[in-house]
Amino acid sequence: MANQKRGKQSFQLQEPPVITAWANVAGKKETEGPLGYTFDIKCRDAYFGQKTWEQAEKQMQQQALKKLAEKAGMAQTDFDLVFSGDLLNQCIGSSFTLRNTGIPHIGLYGACSTMAESLLMASMAVGGGFADKVVAMTSSHFASSERQYRFPLGYGGQRTPTAQWTVTGSGAALVCSKGSGPKITACTIGTVTDLGIKDANNMGAAMAPAAYATIRAHFDDLHTAPEDFDEIVTGDLGQLGKELLLDLARQDGINLGGKLTDCGCLVFDNTKQDVHAGGSGCGCSAITLCGYLLGQLKEKKLKKILFCGTGALLSPTSTQQGLPIPGVCHAVCITGG
Amino acid sequence: MANQKRGKQSFQLQEPPVITAWANVAGKKETEGPLGYTFDIKCRDAYFGQKTWEQAEKQMQQQALKKLAEKAGMAQTDFDLVFSGDLLNQCIGSSFTLRNTGIPHIGLYGACSTMAESLLMASMAVGGGFADKVVAMTSSHFASSERQYRFPLGYGGQRTPTAQWTVTGSGAALVCSKGSGPKITACTIGTVTDLGIKDANNMGAAMAPAAYATIRAHFDDLHTAPEDFDEIVTGDLGQLGKELLLDLARQDGINLGGKLTDCGCLVFDNTKQDVHAGGSGCGCSAITLCGYLLGQLKEKKLKKILFCGTGALLSPTSTQQGLPIPGVCHAVCITGG
Repeated sequence: MANQKRGKQSFQLQEPPVITAWANVAGKKETEGPLGYTFDIKCRDAYFGQKTWEQAEKQMQQQALKKLAEKAGMAQTDFDLVFSGDLLNQCIGSSFTLRNTGIPHIGLYGACSTMAESLLMASMAVGGGFADKVVAMTSSHFASSERQYRFPLGYGGQRTPTAQWTVTGSGAALVCSKGSGPKITACTIGTVTDLGIKDANNMGAAMAPAAYATIRAHFDDLHTAPEDFDEIVTGDLGQLGKELLLDLARQDGINLGGKLTDCGCLVFDNTKQDVHAGGSGCGCSAITLCGYLLGQLKEKKLKKILFCGTGALLSPTSTQQGLPIPGVCHAVCITGG
Repeated sequence: MANQKRGKQSFQLQEPPVITAWANVAGKKETEGPLGYTFDIKCRDAYFGQKTWEQAEKQMQQQALKKLAEKAGMAQTDFDLVFSGDLLNQCIGSSFTLRNTGIPHIGLYGACSTMAESLLMASMAVGGGFADKVVAMTSSHFASSERQYRFPLGYGGQRTPTAQWTVTGSGAALVCSKGSGPKITACTIGTVTDLGIKDANNMGAAMAPAAYATIRAHFDDLHTAPEDFDEIVTGDLGQLGKELLLDLARQDGINLGGKLTDCGCLVFDNTKQDVHAGGSGCGCSAITLCGYLLGQLKEKKLKKILFCGTGALLSPTSTQQGLPIPGVCHAVCITGG
């Protein structure tokens, strides 16, 4: 068999699937940030022309999918399969984007890890010969997220110093068996890790242990090390979570310093944009990957990265019932080309 | 390449993965129904020994996973990967089941189609050589579902004649590359289909068009027909949805009569149990598959079935915003052995 399971959590792709195209959509605050120049569609209206923030999120995904087809030079109906999910209850951002498009759809739930999770699944579908032209996609929206997980914006609650700012944006990547572009060579599937963090305003701390567990599993399963990568990029640990991850690695005898970067730290300029501990949300890693990172890989400024989507698997119900916040992290190794 | 994409939505497995073991857990009302004798674990306590219904749902999945390992003669840590999801906001039933188990986990969201969706994904993971010993699992709970989607039970609202009764139960199946048991030979991935149904108490009508679209795609993509199957089993259309599906097929020149059955009609005895239009929920098709149906296939009383998980992709938010209910259906062809 061509593909190989490696160790407990990882697999290698014998014929690495190719990310032939990508597209992203971002809101006003994101566009004003340091990655603004890498966004395909920039929208100043938080409603994206819709009546509600939830429908704005669907609109962003629709725009990302449309732009992806355009950049790939094909029709949306040429897509074989879309793996997508989001943070909204029952993933309505994704379901309503796909409805009546005729495109086969597998719904995922991986919280903010969804960009990596969908990319991992797309590489399974393509690498296994089950489908070709497979889309990995996700989105998040600051306003829909705040009112669902924390407080309605109108309430005007003060944000804590550890709070992160949910990115308003959507990213989509097209994974194919052939073509030119960055390649997915190996993936590591995350385990659900919970060290007892209960503060819904400190996601970085809740997710850092899961991130470290997955990165360590990737090294062990595939006999690789930090020095084999140009960058190890986590999804949305933010400033605090990133420091915690560096600490966890250091305690375990692994030096990630100099290699580790986090989409939550890249997407906003914290000296000017007052986002507290950084960006977060499914859209955070999605707009950073499907623009800046894949662009750098395409131009061979980066040769090999480990893209690690981090997710906090909480719900308001679990928080109200006094339960801690489990984290998960899925990792995808992408090489430039 | 060994596996083959067929038509627009389907794929065939050249080395069909084997369902080597399965387990199910059910509540009191389900145990009193006609399939009561097929349940591994029967619990009269709606809380399953927990403090809340949401935690009861996690408890059911934990019990199903434990029983599955026991029936397969292995430790839970021998499982390579679990694909699971549920109806609770942010799929907390699944995440909290997997936390700190060390088992790699991919979270899915397919509403009530999750048993078929997870089985389809497990067959991709095993058939593609990415993992072995892969679990497909889901659950639902009447009380957690009612309070999340409709009314709190204490409100005592009257149920409409088209309403279905969410099954309290969990089912898990183990998919392996080798071993003895029923085999997965082909799958069809659903498209999100929406004909404009807006009544959250008439799920059967919302899901029937998606079910027909997927069944028809399976026939077309794989050049097969109703007479090639012993049974075509939908997940939770209920009495009304089943009639609608028969009608849709008839109008399209296809006769499903005599072949079509529905887990929502099998799981309760409507002459005695007053469940209105039948059973529903992720647990409905899960406890019916991971007991009665796989048992019949193992004993060769059934030779070939098309298991069609049906899901209604609504959320209370989408309903309150006046949006219709999109449906989805994923189909898995299982042969006895």
